[in-house]
Amino acid sequence: MALIVQKFGGTSVANPEKIKAVAKRVLGYKKQGNDMVVVLSAMAGETNRFVDLANQMQAIPDPREMDVLLSSGEQVTVALFAMAVKEMGYDAVSLLGDQVKIVTDRMHTKARIKSIDAELIRGHLAAGKVVVVAGFQGVTEERDITTLGRGGSDTTAVALAAALNADQCDIFTDVDGVYTTDPNICDSACKIDRITYDEMLELASLGAKVLDIRSVGIAKRYKVPVHVRSTFSENEGTWVVEEKKKMESMLITGVTYNKNEARITVAKVPDQPGTATKIFKPISDAGINVDMIIQNTRGSEMTDMTFTVPRTDYKRAMAIVEKTAAEIGAEGVSGATDIVKVSIVGVGMRNNAGIATTMFETLSNEGINIMMIATSEIKISCVIEEKYTELAVRSLHKAFNLDAAA
Amino acid sequence: MALIVQKFGGTSVANPEKIKAVAKRVLGYKKQGNDMVVVLSAMAGETNRFVDLANQMQAIPDPREMDVLLSSGEQVTVALFAMAVKEMGYDAVSLLGDQVKIVTDRMHTKARIKSIDAELIRGHLAAGKVVVVAGFQGVTEERDITTLGRGGSDTTAVALAAALNADQCDIFTDVDGVYTTDPNICDSACKIDRITYDEMLELASLGAKVLDIRSVGIAKRYKVPVHVRSTFSENEGTWVVEEKKKMESMLITGVTYNKNEARITVAKVPDQPGTATKIFKPISDAGINVDMIIQNTRGSEMTDMTFTVPRTDYKRAMAIVEKTAAEIGAEGVSGATDIVKVSIVGVGMRNNAGIATTMFETLSNEGINIMMIATSEIKISCVIEEKYTELAVRSLHKAFNLDAAA
Repeated sequence: MALIVQKFGGTSVANPEKIKAVAKRVLGYKKQGNDMVVVLSAMAGETNRFVDLANQMQAIPDPREMDVLLSSGEQVTVALFAMAVKEMGYDAVSLLGDQVKIVTDRMHTKARIKSIDAELIRGHLAAGKVVVVAGFQGVTEERDITTLGRGGSDTTAVALAAALNADQCDIFTDVDGVYTTDPNICDSACKIDRITYDEMLELASLGAKVLDIRSVGIAKRYKVPVHVRSTFSENEGTWVVEEKKKMESMLITGVTYNKNEARITVAKVPDQPGTATKIFKPISDAGINVDMIIQNTRGSEMTDMTFTVPRTDYKRAMAIVEKTAAEIGAEGVSGATDIVKVSIVGVGMRNNAGIATTMFETLSNEGINIMMIATSEIKISCVIEEKYTELAVRSLHKAFNLDAAA
Repeated sequence: MALIVQKFGGTSVANPEKIKAVAKRVLGYKKQGNDMVVVLSAMAGETNRFVDLANQMQAIPDPREMDVLLSSGEQVTVALFAMAVKEMGYDAVSLLGDQVKIVTDRMHTKARIKSIDAELIRGHLAAGKVVVVAGFQGVTEERDITTLGRGGSDTTAVALAAALNADQCDIFTDVDGVYTTDPNICDSACKIDRITYDEMLELASLGAKVLDIRSVGIAKRYKVPVHVRSTFSENEGTWVVEEKKKMESMLITGVTYNKNEARITVAKVPDQPGTATKIFKPISDAGINVDMIIQNTRGSEMTDMTFTVPRTDYKRAMAIVEKTAAEIGAEGVSGATDIVKVSIVGVGMRNNAGIATTMFETLSNEGINIMMIATSEIKISCVIEEKYTELAVRSLHKAFNLDAAA
């Protein structure tokens, strides 16, 4: 007998029939003797409906009231779900964020969880009930309703699993797991059976589609085994777990790419202490995240400074940098938005030399020029021209033997 | 400067445009320097949608979960309303039943308010905010969500007005006040300007259409002046208030009728002590309310016992009474559902003889036979054949000078 937390998203509970199907599935685990905690999102479409209503009321909807509005969506699904379980002859109870005391900070629409009181849930589980918790929502210490932002229900589920010291946390979604790369651009992408928390964090662009990255951080901190799997099949999905020795046989776990990148180069920057601060402080003050930074010294007193920012912040960043460049006496500023960052990720690369070389050679063999390189302990990223995205991903997937066994 | 509680029902907040119109109206009072507390129902149609969803989940939807589901409707309107007020340049805050600590008993779907903590609202009012409270909902001491049943938002508004010691409670509805009788069957019905709590309680069938009777009881207990008025006009509606001397000039305040009545007669009941108990105990044990009771003695040892029950309970009541009649040796049981109870109500009748005579004469002059009579301090009710309903109401309305001045 285990304590299992299961999260189902909006498409899994989009209508009464689907809610019943999910209830039946959950009861399958209950009948096996497990204690079940279910975390639900709002019915698919509800959040959009609420956002639309809010936009009709206020040019920029008030964040506190937005949270009151949005959180009503999960309230509907948990009540309906509890009814479905009862109709099937089992006991159930729905609980909202404030009842579970999912206490968050006051950052409305993107609040962070500070604490969870697991006692109420433990009591209901001890009484044999299926506990149905509204995902995505919390409450401030002043008892104002908050929501957790994008992927918030994943975060609720993993945080509850941590607070309850659950045996596992199942994240049900509309795909059957995490893939070695994007199946949409690489036919031979295959499902990953096991992946470490760190790899999952690095595989952001793959992971974000099936599992919110914030919840991976919580899972890692509290060592919650997370099982990402399909609502529509009984197959095993991808287990996101702590690193185990046997996992090291794999050099590379996945290939990922991020198109939300733009490059900015400040040419002929005087090579003096404090120059980097002068360039980057105004950018970060504007709330723009700088990702990769490369400095090429040319001659003795001049250097070129190249870095990437999110493509969505490109125009704002350029305006800031052009102002700075004039102030510090740089020659000029250039930039480009037609770039992509391609990365290979794997804990195996820690103990294996030559991984980087294989990556560079593979790209070179396809005639792809590498514009920037950045590495971490378990990741190597290269910035290349955007038009080579698919070619680069497929070549790297093949070069690192990730193509499906067939 | 006054403290005003205003309640708007579902049709008044049925869509974003209507919500904005109501917000504008409330701000009119705010701009005059009043402290404003607004109580809102769910958008028209939402409650039906939720009931329909619940019925798809469970044959008899669980009452606790029903309340979780239903209460989400008011949550949506208060958030949207607060946004609308903010867009118009004023500060506002939405509050749910559990935030206001509207503590109720545990009778889900028809809970009764035990206490309200007015402190939170007072604080927000002191800060200049329009306070927007979700109607219809409360919370148990265990922090389970409850709803207050039919007319629950009226109850919330009047109870809040009582807790806040408000100067008045405006109940906005789709009619412009309480009428001397049903305008649908009497053209000369006219709006009542002022009515006492007691009269309003007796005028149940008129009042129920515009103001939930439970809220009148609370208003009476805490002496809250209630103003029933139209959402669609600026005209004065009907003030429900304590009795004042000048009101006594009016003999009769209104004529009302109730068609949900059925008559049952037990013929030739042995006239012995305990007979009434034998007849009525099984009926009340079945949860059926007996309204009027009349006993006609015939001869020395026999009596006829006639009483009324709600028409909706007629068949169940007949079955019970037939069983009892056989046991106590009565001659037989007869009954009818084609009856109506017509009543005249008014505090003025306390000090005026002859009111009853006028009523009986008026009906008699129209050839209407009176089957049963019951009186209270401020009401006289007659049971007559249902087909005479309209004729009786119009005649009494005229006889007591209630026809419009014209």
